[in-house]
Amino acid sequence: MIPPLSDLPFTLDALRDAYAAGVAPAEVMIEALARLAAVDDPAIFIHLASSEQLSAQAAALGPYDPARPLWGMPFAVKDNIDVAGMPTTAACPNYAYTAAEDAFVVARLRAAGAIPIGKTNLDQFATGLVGVRSPYGVPRNALDAEIVPGGSSSGSAVVVAHGIVPFALGTDTAGSGRVPAALNGIVGLKPSLGALSASGVVPACRTLDTISIFALTVADAFDVLRTATAFDPADAYSRPMPAAAMPVPAPAPRITAPDAASLIFFGDDAQAADFEATLTTLAEGGARIDRVDFSPFYDVARMLYDGAWIAERYAAIEDLMMTEPDSIHPVTRAIIAKAETQSAVDAFKGLYRLADLRRACAPILHATDMLCVPTIPTFATRAELDEDPITPNSNLGTYTNFVNLLDLCALAVPTGRRRDGRPGSVTFIAPAGADGVIAAQGQRLTQARCPMLGATGMITPDLPDPAPWPVSASEMALAVCG
Amino acid sequence: MIPPLSDLPFTLDALRDAYAAGVAPAEVMIEALARLAAVDDPAIFIHLASSEQLSAQAAALGPYDPARPLWGMPFAVKDNIDVAGMPTTAACPNYAYTAAEDAFVVARLRAAGAIPIGKTNLDQFATGLVGVRSPYGVPRNALDAEIVPGGSSSGSAVVVAHGIVPFALGTDTAGSGRVPAALNGIVGLKPSLGALSASGVVPACRTLDTISIFALTVADAFDVLRTATAFDPADAYSRPMPAAAMPVPAPAPRITAPDAASLIFFGDDAQAADFEATLTTLAEGGARIDRVDFSPFYDVARMLYDGAWIAERYAAIEDLMMTEPDSIHPVTRAIIAKAETQSAVDAFKGLYRLADLRRACAPILHATDMLCVPTIPTFATRAELDEDPITPNSNLGTYTNFVNLLDLCALAVPTGRRRDGRPGSVTFIAPAGADGVIAAQGQRLTQARCPMLGATGMITPDLPDPAPWPVSASEMALAVCG
Repeated sequence: MIPPLSDLPFTLDALRDAYAAGVAPAEVMIEALARLAAVDDPAIFIHLASSEQLSAQAAALGPYDPARPLWGMPFAVKDNIDVAGMPTTAACPNYAYTAAEDAFVVARLRAAGAIPIGKTNLDQFATGLVGVRSPYGVPRNALDAEIVPGGSSSGSAVVVAHGIVPFALGTDTAGSGRVPAALNGIVGLKPSLGALSASGVVPACRTLDTISIFALTVADAFDVLRTATAFDPADAYSRPMPAAAMPVPAPAPRITAPDAASLIFFGDDAQAADFEATLTTLAEGGARIDRVDFSPFYDVARMLYDGAWIAERYAAIEDLMMTEPDSIHPVTRAIIAKAETQSAVDAFKGLYRLADLRRACAPILHATDMLCVPTIPTFATRAELDEDPITPNSNLGTYTNFVNLLDLCALAVPTGRRRDGRPGSVTFIAPAGADGVIAAQGQRLTQARCPMLGATGMITPDLPDPAPWPVSASEMALAVCG
Repeated sequence: MIPPLSDLPFTLDALRDAYAAGVAPAEVMIEALARLAAVDDPAIFIHLASSEQLSAQAAALGPYDPARPLWGMPFAVKDNIDVAGMPTTAACPNYAYTAAEDAFVVARLRAAGAIPIGKTNLDQFATGLVGVRSPYGVPRNALDAEIVPGGSSSGSAVVVAHGIVPFALGTDTAGSGRVPAALNGIVGLKPSLGALSASGVVPACRTLDTISIFALTVADAFDVLRTATAFDPADAYSRPMPAAAMPVPAPAPRITAPDAASLIFFGDDAQAADFEATLTTLAEGGARIDRVDFSPFYDVARMLYDGAWIAERYAAIEDLMMTEPDSIHPVTRAIIAKAETQSAVDAFKGLYRLADLRRACAPILHATDMLCVPTIPTFATRAELDEDPITPNSNLGTYTNFVNLLDLCALAVPTGRRRDGRPGSVTFIAPAGADGVIAAQGQRLTQARCPMLGATGMITPDLPDPAPWPVSASEMALAVCG
C-alpha cells in the first residue's frame, strides 16, 4: 500500500515503489513544487523550471521503466553546473550565461530518467562554507533559521533536507558538499576526484573540484554516484573509477580519529559529546578506533586559502576580476584578490610543501581503513557572520579543507540530534577509489543511530544489512527505531 | 684468460670477470686514472678524488664479494649530486658547498661496492642540453671535438664514452640524461620519475627531475638502476618502483614513431636515414611500427621552457638570483629570470594545459608498447653555439623535452655510426614503470646494430638473448659483429 504522496518520504526506493504502483511522475513533480511552496524560501533556487516544463519532461519519460535507475526522480542542481536551457550564474549575475548543453553528469542523470527541477543558490563562485555570500539571498537553514545554511552548496542541501527532492548536486573543493550536509542533517557525498566529470561545471580550483551529492540516505547518495560516474575524455581531470555496488561493510574496520589534543570544537561541548558518542557506537559495532595527532592534516587544510591555490579561483574568473571587479561579492573578491600577489615560484613552492605534507600524512592513512572526524567543529549563526564574515567561515572548514588536497573521498552522515537539538554529523574519509568502503560504513552508522532525515520528521528507513550490527546495551535502545 | 687491464672494456661484466680472476680494485682505480690522463681533458671533472683516496676506498672493500653487485666499480657523479666529503657546485662556484652525506642513490651504490671517483662538469644548474654553459670549461665531445659534448650531464657522458668508468650518474629534466648519450655514442637511461630518490640532488625542476644513468651497454645501465632504486620516504617525489630483472623482450612489440610530416631533423639527412634504417631493423626483428602525428608531444615539449616550469628552476636558486645574480652564467640567468614575470595564475594555467595535453597524448600511448624517436634531431657544433647560445640548444630538446612532463621513462641507445661517422641514437619511451620493457627492447636493438661502445673502439659484447633475432638479409651482415 503506497501512502498518499504528501506523506511519502522522497527517497529513491519510496519513489520507485510509488512509480511501480502506478503513480505518475507528473504527480511527483507537482508534489515537489507543493513542498517547495510550503517551505516558502525564495532564496533556495536561483532558477526553477516551470510546472509546465516539469510536466512535459515527466510525460516524455513514457511508461515506467525500472531499468532506468532514476526514472522520474526530481533533482536540484547547484547553479555552477550547467543544465541545458537554464541560466548558469554561479551566484554572480554578471557572470551568467544560458547553458546550451547539460553538464556531463547532468546528462547521465537525465539519461537514467532523472528530471532537473532547477538551479540552487550558492556562495558565489563556490567560495565559502556559509551560504550567505550570494546576491540571490540566503537560503534558510532547514532545521534552525538562526544558523547559516552552510555552503557553498547552500540551496542544494536545504532542498534535500526539506524532502523536496531525493537528491541534489553540489560541488566540493574545500567542503562545500559536506559542511551544508552537516548543518541541515543530511548526507553529503564528496566522491573521489575525477569520478564525476567536471565538464559543464564552473571551476573553483580545477585541480581539486568535484561534483558532490546530497541525499537523505547514504544508499541514495551512493546510487546517484554509481549512475553518474563515467570516464569523460573531455575533462582532463576525469579518472576511470569503479562503479561497483556498495560492498559489505567490514565487520571490524580500522577507524582513525583525532586525539583529544588535536580535536577542535571552539568550545562546543555538545559537538564534542556527539562525536565521542558516535565513536562509541562505532566501537560497539566492532570498529577498532585509533586516535592520532591530526596536525599534519590541519597543516594541509591551511594551504587551501593561505597558499597558492587561491590562484586557481582567480584563474577561473580572471576576466571578471579584471574588467568588472565590482560585480563580485566584496567578501569573495577580497579572498580571491589575494592571488594577485602570488608568483609562479610561490605556486610551485606550494606544490612542494603539499608533496611533503602528503608524505607526512601517508603513514596515518596507510595504517587505517578510514578516518572519522566531526564534519564541522561547531555551528555558525547568521548573526556571527554579520559581525565577522571570515572567521566563522574558516572555522567550518577545519575538518574538510585537507580532503581534496590529499586526493581523498569523504562522506558526511548525520548522527542524530545533539543534546541541544542541533544535528550531529561525522565524516568518513578514505583514499581515492574507496567511495564504496566509506559508504558501507556510513550506511551502517546511520542504521545504528537512526537519524531524522533532514527536516522531514522521518527517520532513516530500515535497510537490509549484510553484516548485522552486534547487539549491545547501547544498540538495544536504538534498535527500536530501525 | 683476462686481458691486460689496459685492454679491458670497462663494462660491469668484464670488470666482474677481472675481479673474480684476482685483479685488485686498486689496479682498476689506477687504470681508470690512467685512461683519464690519456684523454687529457681537464674540463670533464670539477672535482676528482686523489689516487690515495681511491686506493683507500678500494682497500676498504676487503676481499672480492660477488654478492655486492657493484663491488669495485668506479663511477662518476654529476656535480649536482652529493658525494660525502666532496664539493657540490652545480657548476656555480658561488653556490658550492661540501656535502656532509652521500645522496641517497650514491649511498646505495656505495653500499653495493661501487666507488665514486669524482664530480663531473655540467651545464650550470642542469639548465642546458649543450654542455658549454659552465665556468669549469667545456668537456670535449668524446667522438668529435667540433660538436658539443651535450648536456647538461656533459662530463658524465664523456667519461663513460671514453671507457674510464663503467657508468656515471647524470640527471635528467629536459633530456640531460639522453642528449649527451646520443652525442657521445653511449647508453643514457632516464628512469621513471621517483624510481631514484632525489635526496641529495640539487633541484632543477623538482616535479620533473630524476637522476639518470650513463653506461656503455643497456645491461649495465639497467643493472645500476636495479641496484639504486628504492623508495625514499624523505623525498616527497620518490615512488615505489619494481626492481625486477630485465624482462624477455616482446617478440612483436608495437612501436610508435613520428610520421614523415612530424619528423624534425633541421635538414640533417644522415640523421633521417639512420632513424629510418633503425626502424627497418626493428621491423625486421618483428616489431610492428606505427607512424603517428607527433604534434601533441611537441606541444608538451614547448611548455618546459616557454611555460611556468621555469619557475621551478628559479625556486631552486632563488637566494642566489636575488643576492648574487652576477655569479650565475649569463645565458642560464637570462633563461631562469623569465620566471620573474610569471604569476601563480600562470602556473596553474600551465598545469591545466599540461593536463589537457596529457589527455591528447594518451590515446597514442595507450595504443602502443613504446615510442621510438631519434634522440636528437641533429648535432650542434661549438662554433654554432658561440654564435647563438639558445637556438641549437632548444633544437637538441626536440625529442626529449616532453618525456618528463608526461611522466614517461626513456632509454637512449646507440645505433652505430651514421654514414658520416657521427653516432646514431634512438630513444625508446614508455609510461612510468616500464623501464624494464624499454631496456629489453634497447638491448635487443644494440645486439642487432652492434654499435661501437662510445669512443672506446670496442663493440657491444654478445649478450645472451632469450628471444633470438630472426635471421633476415640485413641481419646477416650484422651478425658477424656479435
